[in-house]
Amino acid sequence: MTTRFEFSIQARDGAARTGTIAMARGTIRTPAFMPVGTAATVKAMRASEVRAAGADIILGNTYHLMLRPGAERVARLGGLHDFMGWSGPILTDSGGYQVMSLSTLTKRSEEGVAFASHLDGSKHMVTPERSIEIQRLLGSDIVMAFDELVALPAERPVVEAAMQRSMRWAARSRTAFDALGDTGAIFGIQQGGLDERLRAESAAALTGIGFHGYAIGGLAVGEGQEAMFGVLDYATAQLPAEAPRYLMGVGKPDDIVGAVRRGVDMFDCVLPTRSGRNGQAFTRDGPVNLRNAKHAEDKAPLDPGCACPVCNGPSRAYLHHLTKAGEMLGAMLLTEHNIWFYQQLMADLRAAIAEGRLEAFAEGFLARYRQG
Amino acid sequence: MTTRFEFSIQARDGAARTGTIAMARGTIRTPAFMPVGTAATVKAMRASEVRAAGADIILGNTYHLMLRPGAERVARLGGLHDFMGWSGPILTDSGGYQVMSLSTLTKRSEEGVAFASHLDGSKHMVTPERSIEIQRLLGSDIVMAFDELVALPAERPVVEAAMQRSMRWAARSRTAFDALGDTGAIFGIQQGGLDERLRAESAAALTGIGFHGYAIGGLAVGEGQEAMFGVLDYATAQLPAEAPRYLMGVGKPDDIVGAVRRGVDMFDCVLPTRSGRNGQAFTRDGPVNLRNAKHAEDKAPLDPGCACPVCNGPSRAYLHHLTKAGEMLGAMLLTEHNIWFYQQLMADLRAAIAEGRLEAFAEGFLARYRQG
Ligand SMILES: [Zn+2]
Ligand SMILES: [Zn+2]
Repeated sequence: MTTRFEFSIQARDGAARTGTIAMARGTIRTPAFMPVGTAATVKAMRASEVRAAGADIILGNTYHLMLRPGAERVARLGGLHDFMGWSGPILTDSGGYQVMSLSTLTKRSEEGVAFASHLDGSKHMVTPERSIEIQRLLGSDIVMAFDELVALPAERPVVEAAMQRSMRWAARSRTAFDALGDTGAIFGIQQGGLDERLRAESAAALTGIGFHGYAIGGLAVGEGQEAMFGVLDYATAQLPAEAPRYLMGVGKPDDIVGAVRRGVDMFDCVLPTRSGRNGQAFTRDGPVNLRNAKHAEDKAPLDPGCACPVCNGPSRAYLHHLTKAGEMLGAMLLTEHNIWFYQQLMADLRAAIAEGRLEAFAEGFLARYRQG
Repeated sequence: MTTRFEFSIQARDGAARTGTIAMARGTIRTPAFMPVGTAATVKAMRASEVRAAGADIILGNTYHLMLRPGAERVARLGGLHDFMGWSGPILTDSGGYQVMSLSTLTKRSEEGVAFASHLDGSKHMVTPERSIEIQRLLGSDIVMAFDELVALPAERPVVEAAMQRSMRWAARSRTAFDALGDTGAIFGIQQGGLDERLRAESAAALTGIGFHGYAIGGLAVGEGQEAMFGVLDYATAQLPAEAPRYLMGVGKPDDIVGAVRRGVDMFDCVLPTRSGRNGQAFTRDGPVNLRNAKHAEDKAPLDPGCACPVCNGPSRAYLHHLTKAGEMLGAMLLTEHNIWFYQQLMADLRAAIAEGRLEAFAEGFLARYRQG
């Protein structure tokens, strides 16, 4: 019997921790960044390239996959891992966020959320039970509890009611998860907006139910970095110290550095892939817009300190040309570099924590990154 | 001193030949298929992936590159090979075809062709001398003489006048080539439409000037396979037997098989790359449209007889999904397979010629391909 879910903290530095999550399909080094594979592909990258960049785990989007190709179809095809050629762990979100942000005609009730597909208008209903079922049909290694999204800013009673409903849905998610067999892991999601008391209440509810890991939800929705860090200053400590903490949908490199310092262990974000398709690269000296004419005859590599295949190959001038010409190869190469950049940042953070020099690393990284 | 251009025929089978072209940047096995790298990229493929597929040489488009990023800029950046990371030989076309088919406000004269860029409307003039200069600035290993394109069908006097002007331009191209130094190779281009006498006159003119190789131009412009083969039945024999023959812009797999049987040594075509971006794959059993719903749950590989990474990986169901979802990875994988398919076809043709069994191979290939 392989390990189901074992989180081991190897070192602490302030609120930050580094360690591993051992699972049947592989070990996840934390703090970890999960590239987003929305529609069964990390956009513009082969699965083997994502692995080569250093990713231990990727994220799949339940909403997209349930609509196309469909969860039952993925199951008939042997699950998401076989389907997309990724053998490591996969975390799936619950679909709640995309249902509210992408679909139309959404109608919420205590039972769940009814909506129409943004692809073809077809009608669907997702409940906590159905979300968990879909995630298990996909073959997810880490499934997320189904929760209710609130767009910020919102009145406190609205935030409170959504949080409390999300906690009832978390309990239903856990029950549905357990009913479907004895494998994999399930994470609960803390809600409560920017309110410390609601966050504490949510954390207590989740801890009472019990999960393998705990996500911090409802952030990175436009509140700004200062407000987000303000929540993280107390939210991580509200969650069990012995379980991984996952900050959903975050973020920019400096967001990640700040969140790791505040005790976050896992991240996902579309930024490195989306930016790569838009001509933007992340470097140690800050973001670089390859469309800028100043790169037109620059023979230098994108980021001389980067170990990725792109930074060992073409010049900024070539990347500028590809980006200006709208060539697919430009998106491919910038995405590849960006995923490497994020994975190298996580490796640097892990090493800094292990060696007790996180503050110095973070200050040095941020000073150079922001000066860029 | 490395070899400048040495064509060695190792075996003949009927009109077909197999051999090698030794050049400073590498050896080209013939019959050869050159993937098209229009804008300094074989679309959706890294240069290393094109090489891994078995390509010895690629083609660059002078028209696109002169407009963006510009020939002088490419030269300042160290030439096309360094720029795009392709170390093998590169053949550049003369720009004549794209000037006539893509640009606007074209105005022909004995001097050359004036036109406006399709990108930004900027005014340009290409003459035989400027075409050769651009190709040398790009660092091309095989440059093509600048010729005049005629859209078929056309009256015989129009075809004849364009052919005769093209021969005058061929002589100017050769003179300009020789004036620019003692490296690389230059090919002349036979014209004359579907007219055997004009083709013979063109071949005689080119042979009189003398080139390292000879292209057959003015075909694959909508005349149909039968008419094209009708020309090839005599055109190849009109050209020097000891020099490579290059059929420009061809073509479908069955076009290539038929042209090799008629003595053609080199090909280029956008079909494998363009088709890959449109959801179409070439297989031993004919073209496959991955958008077709019949592939939605097909666990089989794209082409079980193919040695490419794609056919050793994802299912047709996955490729169908990627194609339907408009994912870049779908274009990447289908392009990769298609380039491998073309290179494997060329390898099969070379082996069949070497072993004196080309007719049997061709008949078997075509029967299976057309039954598909
Ligand atoms: Zn890099
Ligand atoms: Zn293949």
